[in-house]
Amino acid sequence: MSTNQDNHTPKQDVGSPPAEPTAPPVPDVENQTPGTTYGVSDIIRRWKREDFINRGSLGLRGLDLLFSLLAFIIMASNKHGDWKDFDKYEEYRYVLAIAILSTLYAVGQALRQVHELWTGNRLLQQRTSSLLDFFGDQIMAYLLISAASSAVPMTNRMRERTDNIFTDASAAAISMTFLAFLALALSAMISGYKLSAQPYI
Amino acid sequence: MSTNQDNHTPKQDVGSPPAEPTAPPVPDVENQTPGTTYGVSDIIRRWKREDFINRGSLGLRGLDLLFSLLAFIIMASNKHGDWKDFDKYEEYRYVLAIAILSTLYAVGQALRQVHELWTGNRLLQQRTSSLLDFFGDQIMAYLLISAASSAVPMTNRMRERTDNIFTDASAAAISMTFLAFLALALSAMISGYKLSAQPYI
Repeated sequence: MSTNQDNHTPKQDVGSPPAEPTAPPVPDVENQTPGTTYGVSDIIRRWKREDFINRGSLGLRGLDLLFSLLAFIIMASNKHGDWKDFDKYEEYRYVLAIAILSTLYAVGQALRQVHELWTGNRLLQQRTSSLLDFFGDQIMAYLLISAASSAVPMTNRMRERTDNIFTDASAAAISMTFLAFLALALSAMISGYKLSAQPYI
Repeated sequence: MSTNQDNHTPKQDVGSPPAEPTAPPVPDVENQTPGTTYGVSDIIRRWKREDFINRGSLGLRGLDLLFSLLAFIIMASNKHGDWKDFDKYEEYRYVLAIAILSTLYAVGQALRQVHELWTGNRLLQQRTSSLLDFFGDQIMAYLLISAASSAVPMTNRMRERTDNIFTDASAAAISMTFLAFLALALSAMISGYKLSAQPYI
Protein backbone atom coordinates (compact mmCIF):
# COMPACT_ATOMS: atom_id res chain seq x y z
CA MET A 1 0.00 0.00 0.00
CA SER A 2 2.46 2.64 1.18
CA THR A 3 5.36 1.21 -0.83
CA ASN A 4 3.87 2.65 -3.96
CA GLN A 5 3.99 6.11 -2.50
CA ASP A 6 7.51 5.51 -1.15
CA ASN A 7 8.67 4.57 -4.60
CA HIS A 8 7.44 7.82 -5.99
CA THR A 9 8.77 10.33 -3.47
CA PRO A 10 12.53 9.64 -3.63
CA LYS A 11 12.59 10.28 -7.38
CA GLN A 12 11.47 13.83 -6.73
CA ASP A 13 13.88 14.40 -3.82
CA VAL A 14 17.12 13.13 -5.37
CA GLY A 15 17.77 16.13 -7.62
CA SER A 16 19.20 18.74 -5.25
CA PRO A 17 18.02 21.87 -7.14
CA PRO A 18 14.24 22.30 -7.42
CA ALA A 19 14.30 21.78 -11.18
CA GLU A 20 11.03 21.25 -12.98
CA PRO A 21 10.89 17.61 -14.07
CA THR A 22 9.44 18.32 -17.53
CA ALA A 23 12.50 20.18 -18.88
CA PRO A 24 14.88 18.12 -21.06
CA PRO A 25 18.30 17.56 -19.47
CA VAL A 26 20.27 20.06 -21.56
CA PRO A 27 23.78 20.41 -20.07
CA ASP A 28 24.17 24.09 -19.27
CA VAL A 29 27.89 24.32 -20.01
CA GLU A 30 28.45 28.05 -19.87
CA ASN A 31 26.55 29.06 -16.73
CA GLN A 32 27.67 26.12 -14.63
CA THR A 33 29.02 27.00 -11.19
CA PRO A 34 32.31 25.08 -10.94
CA GLY A 35 32.50 22.45 -8.24
CA THR A 36 28.92 21.21 -8.15
CA THR A 37 29.04 17.44 -7.78
CA TYR A 38 26.29 16.92 -10.34
CA GLY A 39 28.20 18.54 -13.20
CA VAL A 40 31.54 16.86 -12.46
CA SER A 41 30.09 13.37 -12.09
CA ASP A 42 28.10 13.96 -15.25
CA ILE A 43 31.21 14.90 -17.22
CA ILE A 44 33.19 11.96 -15.80
CA ARG A 45 30.39 9.57 -16.74
CA ARG A 46 30.38 11.00 -20.25
CA TRP A 47 34.16 10.58 -20.49
CA LYS A 48 33.90 6.97 -19.36
CA ARG A 49 31.15 6.21 -21.84
CA GLU A 50 33.12 7.86 -24.63
CA ASP A 51 36.22 5.91 -23.69
CA PHE A 52 34.22 2.66 -23.68
CA ILE A 53 32.75 3.44 -27.09
CA ASN A 54 36.15 4.40 -28.49
CA ARG A 55 37.63 1.10 -27.31
CA GLY A 56 34.66 -0.86 -28.65
CA SER A 57 35.01 0.88 -31.99
CA LEU A 58 38.75 0.14 -32.02
CA GLY A 59 38.06 -3.53 -31.24
CA LEU A 60 35.53 -3.78 -34.06
CA ARG A 61 38.04 -2.23 -36.46
CA GLY A 62 40.61 -4.77 -35.32
CA LEU A 63 38.15 -7.59 -36.06
CA ASP A 64 37.35 -6.03 -39.41
CA LEU A 65 41.05 -5.88 -40.26
CA LEU A 66 41.58 -9.50 -39.18
CA PHE A 67 38.64 -10.88 -41.16
CA SER A 68 39.38 -8.81 -44.28
CA LEU A 69 43.00 -9.93 -44.23
CA LEU A 70 41.97 -13.58 -43.82
CA ALA A 71 39.45 -13.31 -46.68
CA PHE A 72 42.15 -11.72 -48.85
CA ILE A 73 44.80 -14.38 -48.05
CA ILE A 74 42.44 -17.36 -48.36
CA MET A 75 40.97 -16.19 -51.64
CA ALA A 76 44.31 -15.13 -53.16
CA SER A 77 45.87 -18.51 -52.39
CA ASN A 78 42.88 -20.41 -53.77
CA LYS A 79 44.53 -21.68 -56.98
CA HIS A 80 44.59 -25.44 -57.52
CA GLY A 81 44.84 -25.72 -61.31
CA ASP A 82 42.26 -26.65 -63.97
CA TRP A 83 38.77 -25.26 -63.17
CA LYS A 84 39.81 -24.82 -59.53
CA ASP A 85 41.31 -21.34 -59.94
CA PHE A 86 39.56 -18.48 -58.23
CA ASP A 87 40.42 -16.08 -61.06
CA LYS A 88 38.31 -18.02 -63.56
CA TYR A 89 35.15 -16.74 -61.79
CA GLU A 90 34.13 -13.10 -61.69
CA GLU A 91 32.42 -13.52 -58.28
CA TYR A 92 35.64 -14.66 -56.65
CA ARG A 93 37.66 -11.90 -58.30
CA TYR A 94 35.08 -9.45 -56.89
CA VAL A 95 35.45 -10.95 -53.40
CA LEU A 96 39.24 -10.65 -53.64
CA ALA A 97 39.09 -7.03 -54.82
CA ILE A 98 36.73 -5.99 -52.04
CA ALA A 99 38.79 -7.91 -49.43
CA ILE A 100 41.91 -5.98 -50.49
CA LEU A 101 40.03 -2.67 -50.41
CA SER A 102 38.56 -3.44 -46.99
CA THR A 103 41.97 -4.45 -45.62
CA LEU A 104 43.49 -1.17 -46.77
CA TYR A 105 40.59 0.82 -45.30
CA ALA A 106 40.83 -1.04 -41.99
CA VAL A 107 44.61 -0.51 -41.78
CA GLY A 108 44.22 3.20 -42.44
CA GLN A 109 41.43 3.63 -39.90
CA ALA A 110 43.16 1.53 -37.24
CA LEU A 111 46.41 3.48 -37.63
CA ARG A 112 44.53 6.76 -37.27
CA GLN A 113 42.57 5.59 -34.21
CA VAL A 114 45.61 4.07 -32.47
CA HIS A 115 47.54 7.27 -33.12
CA GLU A 116 44.72 9.31 -31.59
CA LEU A 117 44.39 7.04 -28.55
CA TRP A 118 48.12 6.92 -27.81
CA THR A 119 49.15 10.52 -28.44
CA GLY A 120 45.85 12.26 -27.81
CA ASN A 121 46.42 14.40 -30.92
CA ARG A 122 43.74 14.43 -33.54
CA LEU A 123 44.86 14.24 -37.16
CA LEU A 124 41.47 15.52 -38.28
CA GLN A 125 38.82 17.64 -36.63
CA GLN A 126 36.32 15.79 -34.46
CA ARG A 127 33.39 16.42 -36.79
CA THR A 128 35.31 15.58 -39.96
CA SER A 129 36.61 12.32 -38.57
CA SER A 130 33.15 11.33 -37.28
CA LEU A 131 31.61 11.94 -40.69
CA LEU A 132 34.47 10.09 -42.40
CA ASP A 133 33.94 7.12 -40.08
CA PHE A 134 30.20 7.15 -40.62
CA PHE A 135 30.22 7.34 -44.42
CA GLY A 136 33.33 5.20 -44.89
CA ASP A 137 32.08 2.40 -42.66
CA GLN A 138 28.70 2.30 -44.38
CA ILE A 139 30.12 2.29 -47.89
CA MET A 140 32.66 -0.43 -47.06
CA ALA A 141 29.93 -2.48 -45.35
CA TYR A 142 27.75 -2.23 -48.48
CA LEU A 143 30.67 -3.39 -50.66
CA LEU A 144 31.48 -6.31 -48.35
CA ILE A 145 27.90 -7.64 -48.14
CA SER A 146 27.58 -7.22 -51.90
CA ALA A 147 30.74 -9.26 -52.55
CA ALA A 148 29.77 -12.00 -50.12
CA SER A 149 26.21 -12.25 -51.50
CA SER A 150 27.35 -12.39 -55.10
CA ALA A 151 29.68 -15.34 -54.45
CA VAL A 152 27.31 -17.43 -52.31
CA PRO A 153 24.95 -18.94 -54.97
CA MET A 154 27.70 -20.30 -57.27
CA THR A 155 29.63 -21.75 -54.34
CA ASN A 156 26.44 -23.44 -53.13
CA ARG A 157 25.88 -25.04 -56.53
CA MET A 158 29.50 -26.20 -56.75
CA ARG A 159 29.33 -27.76 -53.31
CA GLU A 160 26.17 -29.65 -54.25
CA ARG A 161 28.09 -31.42 -57.00
CA THR A 162 31.54 -31.78 -55.46
CA ASP A 163 33.32 -30.93 -52.23
CA ASN A 164 37.05 -30.30 -52.46
CA ILE A 165 39.69 -27.91 -51.18
CA PHE A 166 38.73 -25.29 -53.77
CA THR A 167 35.07 -25.03 -52.75
CA ASP A 168 35.99 -25.22 -49.06
CA ALA A 169 38.48 -22.37 -49.38
CA SER A 170 35.92 -20.32 -51.32
CA ALA A 171 33.33 -20.88 -48.61
CA ALA A 172 35.86 -19.89 -45.95
CA ALA A 173 36.77 -16.69 -47.77
CA ILE A 174 33.08 -15.82 -48.17
CA SER A 175 32.48 -16.43 -44.47
CA MET A 176 35.40 -14.18 -43.58
CA THR A 177 34.01 -11.47 -45.86
CA PHE A 178 30.64 -11.79 -44.14
CA LEU A 179 32.23 -11.57 -40.67
CA ALA A 180 34.15 -8.47 -41.78
CA PHE A 181 30.82 -7.04 -42.94
CA LEU A 182 29.25 -7.73 -39.53
CA ALA A 183 32.11 -5.98 -37.68
CA LEU A 184 31.93 -3.01 -40.03
CA ALA A 185 28.13 -2.74 -39.85
CA LEU A 186 28.32 -2.61 -36.04
CA SER A 187 31.10 -0.06 -36.35
CA ALA A 188 28.89 2.04 -38.64
CA MET A 189 26.11 1.95 -36.03
CA ILE A 190 28.61 3.11 -33.37
CA SER A 191 29.83 5.85 -35.71
CA GLY A 192 26.22 6.97 -36.05
CA TYR A 193 25.85 7.02 -32.28
CA LYS A 194 29.09 9.03 -31.96
CA LEU A 195 27.79 11.49 -34.50
CA SER A 196 24.59 11.80 -32.49
CA ALA A 197 26.36 12.19 -29.13
CA GLN A 198 28.83 14.74 -30.43
CA PRO A 199 27.17 18.09 -29.69
CA TYR A 200 27.03 17.15 -26.00
CA ILE A 201 30.83 17.18 -25.72
CA MET B 1 30.78 48.89 -43.45
CA SER B 2 28.97 49.15 -40.18
CA THR B 3 26.71 46.23 -40.96
CA ASN B 4 29.63 43.89 -40.51
CA GLN B 5 30.24 45.25 -37.05
CA ASP B 6 26.57 45.13 -36.27
CA ASN B 7 26.50 41.50 -37.21
CA HIS B 8 29.37 40.72 -34.89
CA THR B 9 28.48 42.65 -31.78
CA PRO B 10 25.14 41.01 -30.95
CA LYS B 11 26.78 37.60 -30.86
CA GLN B 12 29.05 38.67 -28.03
CA ASP B 13 26.42 40.64 -26.16
CA VAL B 14 23.57 38.14 -26.25
CA GLY B 15 24.95 35.78 -23.65
CA SER B 16 24.24 37.64 -20.40
CA PRO B 17 27.23 36.26 -18.37
CA PRO B 18 30.79 37.10 -19.50
CA ALA B 19 31.35 33.67 -21.01
CA GLU B 20 34.74 32.73 -22.48
CA PRO B 21 34.55 32.71 -26.30
CA THR B 22 36.28 29.33 -26.67
CA ALA B 23 33.24 27.43 -25.39
CA PRO B 24 31.34 25.48 -28.06
CA PRO B 25 28.07 27.11 -29.13
CA VAL B 26 25.71 25.06 -27.01
CA PRO B 27 22.21 26.53 -27.35
CA ASP B 28 21.33 27.78 -23.92
CA VAL B 29 17.67 26.88 -24.11
CA GLU B 30 16.58 27.57 -20.58
CA ASN B 31 18.29 30.88 -19.83
CA GLN B 32 17.57 32.52 -23.17
CA THR B 33 16.19 36.03 -22.96
CA PRO B 34 13.09 35.95 -25.15
CA GLY B 35 12.91 38.36 -28.08
CA THR B 36 16.59 38.57 -29.15
CA THR B 37 16.73 38.62 -32.95
CA TYR B 38 19.74 36.28 -33.14
CA GLY B 39 17.96 33.46 -31.34
CA VAL B 40 14.77 33.76 -33.36
CA SER B 41 16.49 33.83 -36.76
CA ASP B 42 18.63 30.92 -35.67
CA ILE B 43 15.60 28.91 -34.71
CA ILE B 44 13.79 29.77 -37.94
CA ARG B 45 16.82 28.74 -39.99
CA ARG B 46 16.95 25.45 -38.09
CA TRP B 47 13.22 24.90 -38.73
CA LYS B 48 13.67 25.55 -42.44
CA ARG B 49 16.62 23.18 -42.66
CA GLU B 50 14.70 20.52 -40.75
CA ASP B 51 11.70 20.97 -42.99
CA PHE B 52 13.91 20.62 -46.08
CA ILE B 53 15.51 17.47 -44.70
CA ASN B 54 12.15 16.01 -43.74
CA ARG B 55 10.83 16.59 -47.26
CA GLY B 56 13.98 15.13 -48.81
CA SER B 57 13.69 12.11 -46.58
CA LEU B 58 10.02 11.73 -47.52
CA GLY B 59 10.91 11.95 -51.22
CA LEU B 60 13.58 9.27 -50.86
CA ARG B 61 11.12 7.01 -49.08
CA GLY B 62 8.66 7.57 -51.90
CA LEU B 63 11.31 6.52 -54.41
CA ASP B 64 12.17 3.53 -52.27
CA LEU B 65 8.52 2.49 -52.19
CA LEU B 66 8.17 2.93 -55.96
CA PHE B 67 11.27 0.92 -56.84
CA SER B 68 10.58 -1.84 -54.32
CA LEU B 69 7.04 -2.19 -55.60
CA LEU B 70 8.28 -2.33 -59.22
CA ALA B 71 10.90 -4.96 -58.34
CA PHE B 72 8.22 -6.99 -56.56
CA ILE B 73 5.73 -6.79 -59.45
CA ILE B 74 8.27 -7.44 -62.20
CA MET B 75 9.82 -10.40 -60.42
CA ALA B 76 6.52 -11.92 -59.30
CA SER B 77 5.10 -11.81 -62.85
CA ASN B 78 8.30 -13.30 -64.33
CA LYS B 79 6.91 -16.76 -65.13
CA HIS B 80 7.11 -17.93 -68.73
CA GLY B 81 7.07 -21.71 -68.39
CA ASP B 82 9.83 -24.32 -68.72
CA TRP B 83 13.17 -23.10 -67.30
CA LYS B 84 11.93 -19.51 -67.55
CA ASP B 85 10.23 -19.43 -64.13
CA PHE B 86 11.71 -17.17 -61.50
CA ASP B 87 10.86 -19.62 -58.72
CA LYS B 88 13.22 -22.25 -60.08
CA TYR B 89 16.19 -20.13 -58.96
CA GLU B 90 16.97 -19.35 -55.34
CA GLU B 91 18.52 -15.97 -56.23
CA TYR B 92 15.29 -14.76 -57.80
CA ARG B 93 13.21 -16.04 -54.91
CA TYR B 94 15.56 -14.10 -52.59
CA VAL B 95 15.09 -10.92 -54.68
CA LEU B 96 11.30 -11.35 -54.55
CA ALA B 97 11.30 -11.91 -50.77
CA ILE B 98 13.44 -8.84 -50.10
CA ALA B 99 11.38 -6.73 -52.52
CA ILE B 100 8.21 -7.64 -50.61
CA LEU B 101 9.87 -6.90 -47.26
CA SER B 102 11.19 -3.58 -48.52
CA THR B 103 7.78 -2.60 -49.91
CA LEU B 104 6.13 -3.30 -46.57
CA TYR B 105 8.82 -1.35 -44.71
CA ALA B 106 8.52 1.60 -47.11
CA VAL B 107 4.72 1.66 -46.82
CA GLY B 108 4.91 1.65 -43.02
CA GLN B 109 7.53 4.39 -42.88
CA ALA B 110 5.80 6.57 -45.49
CA LEU B 111 2.47 6.30 -43.67
CA ARG B 112 4.12 7.30 -40.40
CA GLN B 113 5.97 10.25 -41.98
CA VAL B 114 2.96 11.52 -43.91
CA HIS B 115 0.86 11.29 -40.76
CA GLU B 116 3.47 13.31 -38.86
CA LEU B 117 3.79 15.96 -41.57
CA TRP B 118 0.04 16.44 -42.00
CA THR B 119 -1.18 16.32 -38.41
CA GLY B 120 1.97 17.43 -36.59
CA ASN B 121 1.41 14.67 -34.04
CA ARG B 122 4.23 12.27 -33.43
CA LEU B 123 3.30 8.61 -33.07
CA LEU B 124 6.68 7.90 -31.44
CA GLN B 125 9.11 10.01 -29.48
CA GLN B 126 11.60 12.00 -31.56
CA ARG B 127 14.62 10.00 -30.40
CA THR B 128 12.91 6.62 -30.79
CA SER B 129 11.74 7.39 -34.30
CA SER B 130 15.19 8.71 -35.32
CA LEU B 131 16.87 5.55 -34.06
CA LEU B 132 14.22 3.39 -35.75
CA ASP B 133 14.80 5.23 -39.04
CA PHE B 134 18.55 4.93 -38.73
CA PHE B 135 18.73 1.23 -37.91
CA GLY B 136 15.77 0.22 -40.09
CA ASP B 137 17.08 2.02 -43.17
CA GLN B 138 20.54 0.54 -42.80
CA ILE B 139 19.31 -3.01 -42.30
CA MET B 140 16.90 -2.80 -45.25
CA ALA B 141 19.66 -1.28 -47.41
CA TYR B 142 21.98 -4.18 -46.53
CA LEU B 143 19.26 -6.69 -47.45
CA LEU B 144 18.51 -4.96 -50.77
CA ILE B 145 22.14 -4.75 -51.92
CA SER B 146 22.63 -8.35 -50.85
CA ALA B 147 19.64 -9.53 -52.91
CA ALA B 148 20.66 -7.53 -55.97
CA SER B 149 24.29 -8.71 -55.80
CA SER B 150 23.34 -12.35 -55.39
CA ALA B 151 21.17 -12.35 -58.53
CA VAL B 152 23.54 -10.43 -60.81
CA PRO B 153 26.12 -13.15 -61.74
CA MET B 154 23.61 -15.81 -62.83
CA THR B 155 21.62 -13.29 -64.86
CA ASN B 156 24.84 -12.17 -66.56
CA ARG B 157 25.67 -15.75 -67.55
CA MET B 158 22.13 -16.37 -68.83
CA ARG B 159 22.23 -13.24 -70.94
CA GLU B 160 25.55 -14.28 -72.48
CA ARG B 161 23.87 -17.39 -73.86
CA THR B 162 20.39 -16.15 -74.66
CA ASP B 163 18.40 -12.96 -74.45
CA ASN B 164 14.66 -13.30 -73.98
CA ILE B 165 11.80 -11.82 -71.97
CA PHE B 166 12.72 -13.85 -68.90
CA THR B 167 16.31 -12.59 -68.62
CA ASP B 168 15.22 -9.05 -69.49
CA ALA B 169 12.57 -9.03 -66.76
CA SER B 170 15.09 -10.46 -64.28
CA ALA B 171 17.57 -7.72 -65.15
CA ALA B 172 14.84 -5.09 -64.76
CA ALA B 173 13.83 -6.42 -61.34
CA ILE B 174 17.48 -6.45 -60.23
CA SER B 175 17.93 -2.86 -61.42
CA MET B 176 14.82 -1.79 -59.51
CA THR B 177 16.17 -3.51 -56.39
CA PHE B 178 19.45 -1.67 -56.82
CA LEU B 179 17.68 1.68 -57.26
CA ALA B 180 15.63 0.99 -54.12
CA PHE B 181 18.93 0.29 -52.35
CA LEU B 182 20.36 3.62 -53.51
CA ALA B 183 17.32 5.55 -52.25
CA LEU B 184 17.42 3.74 -48.93
CA ALA B 185 21.18 4.20 -48.48
CA LEU B 186 20.78 7.95 -49.01
CA SER B 187 17.87 7.90 -46.58
CA ALA B 188 20.06 6.12 -44.02
CA MET B 189 22.70 8.85 -44.39
CA ILE B 190 20.01 11.50 -43.82
CA SER B 191 18.75 9.56 -40.79
CA GLY B 192 22.30 9.64 -39.42
CA TYR B 193 22.45 13.38 -40.00
CA LYS B 194 19.09 13.81 -38.26
CA LEU B 195 20.35 11.77 -35.33
CA SER B 196 23.42 14.02 -35.16
CA ALA B 197 21.44 17.27 -35.43
CA GLN B 198 18.87 16.20 -32.85
CA PRO B 199 20.27 17.57 -29.57
CA TYR B 200 20.17 21.10 -31.03
CA ILE B 201 16.38 21.03 -31.27
